[in-house]
Amino acid sequence: MNKNITVKNMGSDIKLVAGTSHPELAAEVSAHLGIPLSGRDIVRFPNENIFVRLHETVRGQDAYVIQTMCPPVSDNIMEMLITIDCLRRASAERITAVFPYMAYARSDKKDQPRVPISAKMIANMISAAGADRYITVDLHAGQIQGFFDIPGDELTAFHLMVDYLKKKQLDDVVIVSTDLGFAKKARNFAAELDTPMAIVEKRRMGNTMQSEALSLIGEVSGKTAIVVDEEILTAGSITNAVQVVRDHGAKDVYICCTHPAFTSAGIEKLRGIDVKEIITTNTLPIAPQHRLPNLKVLSIAPLIGEVIQRVHEGKSVGEMFDE
Amino acid sequence: MNKNITVKNMGSDIKLVAGTSHPELAAEVSAHLGIPLSGRDIVRFPNENIFVRLHETVRGQDAYVIQTMCPPVSDNIMEMLITIDCLRRASAERITAVFPYMAYARSDKKDQPRVPISAKMIANMISAAGADRYITVDLHAGQIQGFFDIPGDELTAFHLMVDYLKKKQLDDVVIVSTDLGFAKKARNFAAELDTPMAIVEKRRMGNTMQSEALSLIGEVSGKTAIVVDEEILTAGSITNAVQVVRDHGAKDVYICCTHPAFTSAGIEKLRGIDVKEIITTNTLPIAPQHRLPNLKVLSIAPLIGEVIQRVHEGKSVGEMFDE
Amino acid sequence: MNKNITVKNMGSDIKLVAGTSHPELAAEVSAHLGIPLSGRDIVRFPNENIFVRLHETVRGQDAYVIQTMCPPVSDNIMEMLITIDCLRRASAERITAVFPYMAYARSDKKDQPRVPISAKMIANMISAAGADRYITVDLHAGQIQGFFDIPGDELTAFHLMVDYLKKKQLDDVVIVSTDLGFAKKARNFAAELDTPMAIVEKRRMGNTMQSEALSLIGEVSGKTAIVVDEEILTAGSITNAVQVVRDHGAKDVYICCTHPAFTSAGIEKLRGIDVKEIITTNTLPIAPQHRLPNLKVLSIAPLIGEVIQRVHEGKSVGEMFDE
Amino acid sequence: MNKNITVKNMGSDIKLVAGTSHPELAAEVSAHLGIPLSGRDIVRFPNENIFVRLHETVRGQDAYVIQTMCPPVSDNIMEMLITIDCLRRASAERITAVFPYMAYARSDKKDQPRVPISAKMIANMISAAGADRYITVDLHAGQIQGFFDIPGDELTAFHLMVDYLKKKQLDDVVIVSTDLGFAKKARNFAAELDTPMAIVEKRRMGNTMQSEALSLIGEVSGKTAIVVDEEILTAGSITNAVQVVRDHGAKDVYICCTHPAFTSAGIEKLRGIDVKEIITTNTLPIAPQHRLPNLKVLSIAPLIGEVIQRVHEGKSVGEMFDE
Amino acid sequence: MNKNITVKNMGSDIKLVAGTSHPELAAEVSAHLGIPLSGRDIVRFPNENIFVRLHETVRGQDAYVIQTMCPPVSDNIMEMLITIDCLRRASAERITAVFPYMAYARSDKKDQPRVPISAKMIANMISAAGADRYITVDLHAGQIQGFFDIPGDELTAFHLMVDYLKKKQLDDVVIVSTDLGFAKKARNFAAELDTPMAIVEKRRMGNTMQSEALSLIGEVSGKTAIVVDEEILTAGSITNAVQVVRDHGAKDVYICCTHPAFTSAGIEKLRGIDVKEIITTNTLPIAPQHRLPNLKVLSIAPLIGEVIQRVHEGKSVGEMFDE
Amino acid sequence: MNKNITVKNMGSDIKLVAGTSHPELAAEVSAHLGIPLSGRDIVRFPNENIFVRLHETVRGQDAYVIQTMCPPVSDNIMEMLITIDCLRRASAERITAVFPYMAYARSDKKDQPRVPISAKMIANMISAAGADRYITVDLHAGQIQGFFDIPGDELTAFHLMVDYLKKKQLDDVVIVSTDLGFAKKARNFAAELDTPMAIVEKRRMGNTMQSEALSLIGEVSGKTAIVVDEEILTAGSITNAVQVVRDHGAKDVYICCTHPAFTSAGIEKLRGIDVKEIITTNTLPIAPQHRLPNLKVLSIAPLIGEVIQRVHEGKSVGEMFDE
Repeated sequence: MNKNITVKNMGSDIKLVAGTSHPELAAEVSAHLGIPLSGRDIVRFPNENIFVRLHETVRGQDAYVIQTMCPPVSDNIMEMLITIDCLRRASAERITAVFPYMAYARSDKKDQPRVPISAKMIANMISAAGADRYITVDLHAGQIQGFFDIPGDELTAFHLMVDYLKKKQLDDVVIVSTDLGFAKKARNFAAELDTPMAIVEKRRMGNTMQSEALSLIGEVSGKTAIVVDEEILTAGSITNAVQVVRDHGAKDVYICCTHPAFTSAGIEKLRGIDVKEIITTNTLPIAPQHRLPNLKVLSIAPLIGEVIQRVHEGKSVGEMFDE
Repeated sequence: MNKNITVKNMGSDIKLVAGTSHPELAAEVSAHLGIPLSGRDIVRFPNENIFVRLHETVRGQDAYVIQTMCPPVSDNIMEMLITIDCLRRASAERITAVFPYMAYARSDKKDQPRVPISAKMIANMISAAGADRYITVDLHAGQIQGFFDIPGDELTAFHLMVDYLKKKQLDDVVIVSTDLGFAKKARNFAAELDTPMAIVEKRRMGNTMQSEALSLIGEVSGKTAIVVDEEILTAGSITNAVQVVRDHGAKDVYICCTHPAFTSAGIEKLRGIDVKEIITTNTLPIAPQHRLPNLKVLSIAPLIGEVIQRVHEGKSVGEMFDE
Repeated sequence: MNKNITVKNMGSDIKLVAGTSHPELAAEVSAHLGIPLSGRDIVRFPNENIFVRLHETVRGQDAYVIQTMCPPVSDNIMEMLITIDCLRRASAERITAVFPYMAYARSDKKDQPRVPISAKMIANMISAAGADRYITVDLHAGQIQGFFDIPGDELTAFHLMVDYLKKKQLDDVVIVSTDLGFAKKARNFAAELDTPMAIVEKRRMGNTMQSEALSLIGEVSGKTAIVVDEEILTAGSITNAVQVVRDHGAKDVYICCTHPAFTSAGIEKLRGIDVKEIITTNTLPIAPQHRLPNLKVLSIAPLIGEVIQRVHEGKSVGEMFDE
Repeated sequence: MNKNITVKNMGSDIKLVAGTSHPELAAEVSAHLGIPLSGRDIVRFPNENIFVRLHETVRGQDAYVIQTMCPPVSDNIMEMLITIDCLRRASAERITAVFPYMAYARSDKKDQPRVPISAKMIANMISAAGADRYITVDLHAGQIQGFFDIPGDELTAFHLMVDYLKKKQLDDVVIVSTDLGFAKKARNFAAELDTPMAIVEKRRMGNTMQSEALSLIGEVSGKTAIVVDEEILTAGSITNAVQVVRDHGAKDVYICCTHPAFTSAGIEKLRGIDVKEIITTNTLPIAPQHRLPNLKVLSIAPLIGEVIQRVHEGKSVGEMFDE
Repeated sequence: MNKNITVKNMGSDIKLVAGTSHPELAAEVSAHLGIPLSGRDIVRFPNENIFVRLHETVRGQDAYVIQTMCPPVSDNIMEMLITIDCLRRASAERITAVFPYMAYARSDKKDQPRVPISAKMIANMISAAGADRYITVDLHAGQIQGFFDIPGDELTAFHLMVDYLKKKQLDDVVIVSTDLGFAKKARNFAAELDTPMAIVEKRRMGNTMQSEALSLIGEVSGKTAIVVDEEILTAGSITNAVQVVRDHGAKDVYICCTHPAFTSAGIEKLRGIDVKEIITTNTLPIAPQHRLPNLKVLSIAPLIGEVIQRVHEGKSVGEMFDE
Repeated sequence: MNKNITVKNMGSDIKLVAGTSHPELAAEVSAHLGIPLSGRDIVRFPNENIFVRLHETVRGQDAYVIQTMCPPVSDNIMEMLITIDCLRRASAERITAVFPYMAYARSDKKDQPRVPISAKMIANMISAAGADRYITVDLHAGQIQGFFDIPGDELTAFHLMVDYLKKKQLDDVVIVSTDLGFAKKARNFAAELDTPMAIVEKRRMGNTMQSEALSLIGEVSGKTAIVVDEEILTAGSITNAVQVVRDHGAKDVYICCTHPAFTSAGIEKLRGIDVKEIITTNTLPIAPQHRLPNLKVLSIAPLIGEVIQRVHEGKSVGEMFDE
C-alpha cells in the first residue's frame, strides 16, 4: 500500500526474461543492453499446460518479460501472463511486460452490438497477472494506452522508418494511406518527409462483407508512392492499395508498415506485386521463407533496449525523441 | 459479491434525476418517458461546495442521472459524481450516468510525453463514485468505451442526422471531413448518402503551433458540400474547412456535427460564413443568443428516452438500429 | 455497488452460450434443459485473434458460458474470457462460467522456488473478465475453490461413478489409488462401496526425474481392483498402477477417473493393458478414435443442467446430493 | 459487474442468521418480523477456530447477519466475518451485516502518531468478507459511515429515548453532556425536550494520563439533570459527571445512554451512585447480574426489524422518522 | 504488486508541482525547501477542459502536487486530479497530494436521508487518480483521515496559533468555541493556554433553517475572549459569537481560525465588528482586498516544507511536535 | 500505482514488531538478527478493544509483524491486523506479516454445502489490512499460498526435523502417516530417510461422526515407527495412530509434527502413551506445564530470521535449501 519503498537491495538489476515467441528479438535486446537473458524453463506439458520456472533468483530485481503476441497468439499471451505471475510470486521488484506487438488491438471498441472489447480485456489480464508497467510499439489506436491503469511506454517505429526513407532521397514522393483510419498517421509521414498525401477509400458494396469498392482520394500520378499502414496480415488491403495507386499512374511504389504480421497467403500476395521495397520492423518474427528479396526489416531492438535502460534508471524516455 | 439479486421490490421503477447542466434535455427525456423528474435540491454553498439532496426515496429503484458535461465543466462533472454518490448511499438499485456529451474525450491518449489521459480518469471517477452503467452519445473515439469496465451504451446521432439530410433530397453532394481524424466517420455519411467524399488536411507550418497549412484531398468543385465533424467549439476548423471547400469551387455548403459546444467567439465565426444550414443536436444546451437563424437542432431526447426504457426493461438496444 | 437489484425484467431467462471446445456436451446440457443454445459467431481471424459476436440480445438475462478447457487449451481459455467480456458489455444480468474441466489445476502451489501458481491466475482472469459465478467438476484440489472470490459450485462425478459401480455388483473389490495425493478421495470410493483400499506409492530414484520406483501399500491379491484417479493424460501413472496391482495378484482390474484428458499416446497405452472397463465422464470431449471398446463414458450433462436450473431458480444445489 | 440483476427467484425472502453474541435481540427481531431465525451451527473447535454451517439453503435469498460486537469482541467480529463469507459462498442474494454496536468506533482517527484507525479496518473487513450493506445504531461518530463504500443505514436510539423521557413529564430539566465531544448530540436532546444544557469539561492535569480536572460549563443548580452519553463502559466518566452536577446543586439525576457496554466494575460504580434511572437500550446484551433496579432498557428490536423489512422491500427508511 | 521496490535510480529527488490555486503558498514551500517548482503548463481550453503538461521528466521521482481547494473549487479539484494522473502516467515514483484545505470536508456524514458523503468521494477520487499519499491541514473532522486507505499526514496549525497567542501575553483570557462541534478542539486551546472556556450554543427556532437562538454556556464577563473556529466563510457564526460574548461582557475579543475561506460578504462582516485581531493562516489564498488591517496571517509553508522533507527522507513527522 | 519506487531513505532498516502471541519466538528471531524488537504498546481496553501504538518512527522502514495464531486465536488475528493497519498509516515502507502458524488453515475448501472457506477470508483480511508480503511455516495445504495475491514465503520445518532424525541414526525405521491426507508429505520423510512408509486409514462407522474404524495400510511389524503429522491438537489422531502401530507390532515409536497446537487434554493423552520422543517446533508457544519430558522442541527462529534477512536484502530464499 505504501509507496516509499526502498529496501536494502539497492543494487537492483535488470532481469530480462524472454518468452518463446521471438527469441531473435530478445537476443538482440539482450545484446544491446549487454545483459544476458535470464535462464528459465518454459515447458508445454502433454496436456498443453504451459509451465514456467526461473533458474535464478529475481527477488528484488527489475524484471522485463519480452514476449510479442504473434501466433500461436493464445499460447503466447498465456505464456506471458504465467511468466508475470511467476515473477510476482518470486518477489521480483518490478515487472514490465514488453510486448512489441499487441494482439487484439483492433478489437478496441464496440462498433456493433454484442461484441467484446478484447483489447481492454487483454490489458486487464496483464495488470491482473501482476505487471507493474508495459512497453509496446505502435498500438492500433493510441487510446489503448488508456485501457491500462498501470503506466507504460508506447514506442513508435515512425522515426526509424522515416530516417530510413529520408536516406533513400526519393523524388516526387506521395504518401498513400491504405485506409481512412490510418490517414492521420500517414499525414505524419507526409509532414516529416514534406510530401503530399493520398488516401485509399474502401466502401462496402451491396449487402455483403466481401466486396468493397476502392477509390483514391488525392493525386499520385507520376509520383513515387509510399503506401503506409500499421500492419500487414493477409496483404489484402495493401495489395489493393498498390493496385489503386498503380491504376492512378503512380511510378514506383514502396510499402512501409510497422508490424509484419504476414500470413503465408499474405506473403504470396506480396510476392506477386511490383513494389520496390517493403519496409517493416521486427516487432514480430518473420519466418525465413517469408523473407522476400525486397523486404527490408529495421530492428526495433536498440529502441527497446534503450527504453528499458532509461526506465530502469528513471531517465526520461521522451528526450530520446527530442520531445 | 453475489449477482443473483432480486429482493422483493419487484416493481422497481425508473427514477430520473437531472443535474443542473441541461434542464431542457432532461425535461424532454422525462416527457418522452412520461416519468417526472425526481425532486432534488442541488445547492451551491457560498464556499462553492455542491450539495445534493433527493426529495423522495430511491431505495431499490433504477436511477438515471442526466447531466451533460457543458460549461461550467468541472462543476458539472463534480455535480454528477456527487449525485451518483448520493444515489448510491441512498440505496438506489442501479445507477446509470447519462452524459450525452463527455468532456475531456479528446484527452484520450499520451500523444506527447508527460500529459494525462484525462478521459480515462473521468471514466474511472464515474465508476469509483458508484455508477453501474453509462449512456453517452458519439464519443470522440469509440475506444473510450474501453476506458470503462462498467457496461454502457454509446448512442449515435448519425441516424438522426442522415435521416434529416436524406429528406432534404440534395443533389450532387460531397461529404467533407474537417480533418483526417474524422475521415472514417465521414465515410459513413458518404456511404449512407451514397456520395463521394473529400478531406481537409491540416499540416503544421514551421515551428509554431499556430499556423497551419490546409489542403483538400478529393474533389468538391460544383458540388453541394456537407462538412461533417463531431463537435464545434471555437469553429476554427469548421470555418477553415468551409473556406477551403469554397476555394475549391463547392456550390452550397452545409455543416453537420453532433455536439454544439459553441463558444461565443465560435458563434460569431459561424455567423460570418455563408452556409445553408448548420445541423446539430441538443447533446449540449445552446444559449438563446447562440441560436443562429440557420441552426437546425435535432433532439436526441427521444433516443435517450427510448434507450433508458429498453435498458430498464432488459430489451435490446441494438435492435433500435436494426443491428 | 448496491445489491438490492431487480429491474423490471422479471422474466429473466437462462441463456446458454457454448464455446467451441465441446459442442456435444453443450448440446446435451441444452437438451436436458429444453433451452436452445444461443446463436453466436466465434471466428478465428487469419491473425488468430478470436472474435465473438452474439446473435441475440442477452440484456438482463442469466447467461452461462459452457466451455471446457481441453486442447487447444490456451485458445479455449481465451475464447471463454472473450465470451465473458462480450456478455458483460452486452449487459447480461449475470454471467456464470461453466468449465467442467479446469486446466492448470495442478499448478496450484509453489512447491519449488520461482514457479507460478497458474490455477490462481486462471481464477483471477475469469473474475477479471467479468464472470459472476463459476461451475466446475472435480477440481484437482478442493482448495482451488478458495482461489475464487466469486461464488461457485464444484460438482463431482463421484456419485455418478459410484452408482454405476454399485450396479455392477462386483465381488471382493479393492479400491486402489494411483498415488498418495489421491488417497483421500480413493477412500471415499472405498467407504461408499464398503471395500478395503490400497495405494500405489511412487518414489523418485536417484537424481533423475524419469525413473520412479513403485510399491504398493495394502493388499490386492485375488481381488477385483478398481484403480481410481482424477484424470488420465498420458496414462503413465494409471498403466503403472495397473501393472503393480497385477504384479501383486489382483484378479480383474477396472479403471475409474473423472476427466478423460487422454493424449493419443495415452490411448495407445490404455489399449495395451488388460482392464475390464475404463469408466470416465464427458467433462472433456473424447475423439472418436479414442473411444476404446472397453471405455464407458458417463454423461455429466444432466448434472450440469440440473445445477444451472437450480442456480437460476435460487434453489439449493446441496440437496441434490442429500447434503 | 452488471447490475440489472433479477434471476427468476422472485420470491426472495428475508433470512435472519443470528451470531452467538446476543441471542435475545436476534429473537426479538425475529419475533417482530414473524420470520424464524435460520438454523445454523456455530461451533468453536478445541483450537478456537470458529466454524459456521447453515442448515438450509440461502441461495438467492436476502440475508441479514445479526451480531453485535460485545465481548468476546474479537471472537464476535471473527464470527460475523466468517458467517458473511459462508453466506457469500452459499450464494445468498444480498448480505446485510447488522451490528447494533460497532466496536473499535472510538479508534476513528490518528490523534497521535503511529496509531491505527481500527474502525476503518473493521469497515474494510466487513466489505472484504462480502457484506453488501450494513445496519448499525448510533455510531461513535457519524463520519464512520464514510469508512464504508457499501451503503448502509445508521439508526439512532434518540427518538426512543426522547419519547420515553417526554412521557416522564419531568420539570425544570437540564441536559448534561458528559464531555465536549458529545455536546452536539446532547444539544439534540435539549432541543427536542426544550431544555437548557450544560457540559462537563475534562482537562488532563500535569503529565499523567490518569488525573483529570473536571469543571462544569453551564448551570444545573436546582434542576433535574439528565446526563447523556453514547455508551457506558467503566462508568468513570458518567459517575464523575453525576458527581459534578450534584456538586453544582442538581436535584434529581437521570442517566441516558444508547450502548450499555458495562463492565462489572462499571456496574458497581453505577450501583453506588444516587440516580433516579439509568435509561439505555439493548444494542448490547446485559447480564442478569448487571440489571440494576433503576436500569431501564428500551428495546431497539422493533426499530431494527422495521428497517430490515423496509430495506428488503425497497421502502424509504427515512420516512420512519418523518425525515 | 510487489513492494520490495528500489530500481537503480537512487538519487530520487523531490519534485514540486504547483497547481494554479495558490501560487504564493507553493512559492513559499519551494523557497523553504530550496527546490524550484517544476515547470508545467496548466491550460484551460476554450471548452474549459483543463490540460496539464510537465516540462521535465519526473520518471522515478518523488512528486508533490501542491493545490489547495479554494474557489474555483471544482476546477481546482479537477486540476489536482488531472495533475496526479499526468504524474502517474509519466512514471513518477511516488505522488503525494498536498491540499492544505480540503473542500467538502463538512459533507462527512449522512445526517439526513438521501445526501451524499462528498468528502469520502473526494478521498476516493484522489486515490483513484493515482495519489500514493496525502498531506493536509486541520481537517473538519479527524475521522476524514479514515476515508483514505492511502497513508497521509494531517498537519495542524494549532501549535503555530498557540505559540503566536502565547507571545501576546494576554491576561485573563477565555477561549470561546463558536459552536458545540468545535468545543473539543477549543478545549485544546484552553488547556494549552491554561484558560477557562465557554461555548456558544446555537439552536434552531421554529421550523425554518434561518433563525437560530444563540446562548452562551460558560463565563466570559470582563475577560479577553479568544473566539476560535476552524474556518471562516460568510462569517455569520463568528460575528454572532463575537456579539454573544460582547453581550455577556467580554472585554477584548480576538478571532482565531485555521482556514481563511472568506467570501467578500464575510470580509465585510468582519470589517464591521470590533475585534483586536483576526489570526489565521495561509492554507487558502487571501485576496489583497480581503486583507483587513487587523488580519494576521501565519504561514504554514515552513510546516508543509518540513513535512515534505521528512516524508521524502523517511524521517518521523511526529517528532516535529515532540509527539 | 507506480512501482519504480526508491525515495531517498536508502538506509531502510528492518523493524521487528512483535505481537503478544509468542514473545519467546520474537525474542529469538530478534537475537538471531541482532536487531532489537521495536517498542510498542499493545493494550487491551476494558471494552476488549485492542490498541496498538508504536514508540518509534517506522516511516520508510521494512517492517515485520511477528505474530503466531495461537489461542486466544481471534484476539491474535485482530491484533495482527490492527498492527498492520498501524504500520501502514505510520508510513512503513513495506509490511510483512510473519505468522509461523496460520489458524483456520483446515477451513480451506467447501467440502459440504453452506460452509465458509475461512482460510481464504483470513488471507483476504491480511491483504486488506495492508500487508505487502507474508511469511509462514508448513501450511495445512500448499494451495493456501494461492489464496494470497501478495507474494510470500512458505517455509518448512521439514529439513529441521529430518536433520534431527538423521542424527539419531535409528535402525529399521518406518514412517507412518496419521491419515491419508498427510500421506504425500509423509512420503517425503520416508524418501529423505530412505525408509518404507505406512498409513493409518480412518473410516467413519455408521451414521455418527464420533466412531471411526482405523486400519493400517502397510507394514510396521518389528520396526521403529516415526508417526508424522502436521499439527497435534487434542492428540486424538496421533494417539490412535500410535495405538494402531503398536497393535501391528511396531517396536519403538516416535512422533514428529511441525505445529504443537496442544490442548491441555491433548497433553494428557500424550503423557499417557509410550513414545520415545515427540519432536516438534516452536511455531506456537508451549506452556511450561505442557513441556513433557519426552518433548523435543526444535527452534524455527533461525530459519525465520534468515529468511527475513534475505527478503530484506533481496537475496534468494530458495538457495537456503539448495533449491
